[in-house]
Amino acid sequence: MAASKQEFIAGFDFGGTKMRVAVLSPSNKIVGRAEGKTKNVATPKAGVERIVALVNEAFEAARQQYPDAQLAGLGLAVPGPVNPEKGVIHELPNIGWKNVPIAKFMEKAIGAPVAVINDVDAGIFGEYHFGAARGARTAVGVFPGTGIGGGAVINGALLLGPGISCMEIGHFPVMRDGPLCGCGQRGCLEAVAGRFAIAQEAAVAACRGLAPNLFELVGTDIAQIRSRTLAKAIAAGDEVVGQIVRQAARHIGLAVAAVVNLLAADCVVLGGGLVEAMPEIFVPEVGATAKARAMESFRDRVAILAAKLGDDAAILGAAHYAAQQLK
Amino acid sequence: MAASKQEFIAGFDFGGTKMRVAVLSPSNKIVGRAEGKTKNVATPKAGVERIVALVNEAFEAARQQYPDAQLAGLGLAVPGPVNPEKGVIHELPNIGWKNVPIAKFMEKAIGAPVAVINDVDAGIFGEYHFGAARGARTAVGVFPGTGIGGGAVINGALLLGPGISCMEIGHFPVMRDGPLCGCGQRGCLEAVAGRFAIAQEAAVAACRGLAPNLFELVGTDIAQIRSRTLAKAIAAGDEVVGQIVRQAARHIGLAVAAVVNLLAADCVVLGGGLVEAMPEIFVPEVGATAKARAMESFRDRVAILAAKLGDDAAILGAAHYAAQQLK
Repeated sequence: MAASKQEFIAGFDFGGTKMRVAVLSPSNKIVGRAEGKTKNVATPKAGVERIVALVNEAFEAARQQYPDAQLAGLGLAVPGPVNPEKGVIHELPNIGWKNVPIAKFMEKAIGAPVAVINDVDAGIFGEYHFGAARGARTAVGVFPGTGIGGGAVINGALLLGPGISCMEIGHFPVMRDGPLCGCGQRGCLEAVAGRFAIAQEAAVAACRGLAPNLFELVGTDIAQIRSRTLAKAIAAGDEVVGQIVRQAARHIGLAVAAVVNLLAADCVVLGGGLVEAMPEIFVPEVGATAKARAMESFRDRVAILAAKLGDDAAILGAAHYAAQQLK
Repeated sequence: MAASKQEFIAGFDFGGTKMRVAVLSPSNKIVGRAEGKTKNVATPKAGVERIVALVNEAFEAARQQYPDAQLAGLGLAVPGPVNPEKGVIHELPNIGWKNVPIAKFMEKAIGAPVAVINDVDAGIFGEYHFGAARGARTAVGVFPGTGIGGGAVINGALLLGPGISCMEIGHFPVMRDGPLCGCGQRGCLEAVAGRFAIAQEAAVAACRGLAPNLFELVGTDIAQIRSRTLAKAIAAGDEVVGQIVRQAARHIGLAVAAVVNLLAADCVVLGGGLVEAMPEIFVPEVGATAKARAMESFRDRVAILAAKLGDDAAILGAAHYAAQQLK
């Protein structure tokens, strides 16, 4: 008698610079992985081939332990707005795709159902089911980096708009007539507290001679001031850089308070490049500001925590989202 | 053979000054009504008796047309925070109740299941299923009056926090170090754009001789400046009062934009005392500000409309919510 087939789900994180895929066993364990640079994806056709090759590679790894592993479905997380119902990518600004019915293309290529979600949504979905937000009922994810992504999970289900991903906390209005945002508006949270906002103030401080360690590390080119550079400069003694970062964290805390007042979240997960580089600043500072500004009824119910899963959040979240859609 | 029993649901709006109840037929038609002042409710025991008496009165009316009408459930909308899962009223500030397990008390008294929701939630739930938001998928209700209430319905279900009502848009932070709010914070939307905020500016204008019609109508006592007074003063030619009201509407529009960016709502319903008194100001002004400030992806998807059901929204919403819970 042949061994029964076992059904495995793959989660794929289609990042702007890196692609990562994991295969999950029926008991939600990662049993195979593959990764590579984001290249050869100029067209959706080429992109599908590249994705399929990496999925197959991860499955080869999984089959060493589970020879009968079958691909039951794929969750694809992408860095841009999607229509999760139709499996269409609205736009991937870093890759140049627009209106790509990627689920249809992928399903033809792999012969299994494909679910498409935004990568930030995948991240909070992963943290909710496997990471920092386990046990929460309403969890909000806030991921400050170059952009500031947001997502929410309520009673186990991802919060989605009608045919569109949502929770755009990065474009929360925090400052009227504030700095210009990439979206064209002024004073969005992202423009006030994202990496560029912090980097530009830090660069000016370096120009003024107030951040000598930052100056020595990378000079005053904003493009070179990454999250880890800021962390290094602070660790080396640039107090003014610490002040700039804390101010950004307080802006984020204000937006988090507003979201807590709206969703009555019992858990807020903080991740993203800035938080990963400086959790000891962001977690307490965002937490204190948010709790001071949220309504009393909600303040004591909400835990504000660092993300736990790092890069695995999105692949685990994408895989679990696909599994949920298959039910 | 006896005629088969028909199951009817009652919706009850337990307002701060008035109580209203309607009985809904199985086809969601109002077939009986009753109403009265909010009195004899000093204790929950007295309150239950008063509610039961009004429900019975509405049922008597319904039974003239449907002699076999049976009460299958009751939805109770109250002006304060509740635990909808346990049917507990956290607090009714105007009535003085705290932590009242009203569903349990009511179920004993009427022998049918009772669902408890916040009155603003009941209002948007009513507008979603029977009023201005029919056909929408994600609808947000914003009800500016003395307070500014909010609620949301997503794919037919009320948005609720874990064991608590949510969507507190009235306490959305719009102005750092802004005017003091009833909640103890500063710069909440309610403190910047609610009735008192408008009334205080209008009263100052009247003191300065800039709002002669308002002055003639009610003088400069803020407590006397109601929504309809403001509307009358504007209609009589007090331009400055119109400017003050439009500024408040723009603040509300900014908060609406933030909520649209978070929930990707395809419908925003505006109701409440201020909007009912001056829809020709609030609907276009909130709409224009919100659309100008929301993200492009969401801007064209959202309709911003006046509520349609007036006082019936909450009773219809409460009844339908109870019906949904019984399924």
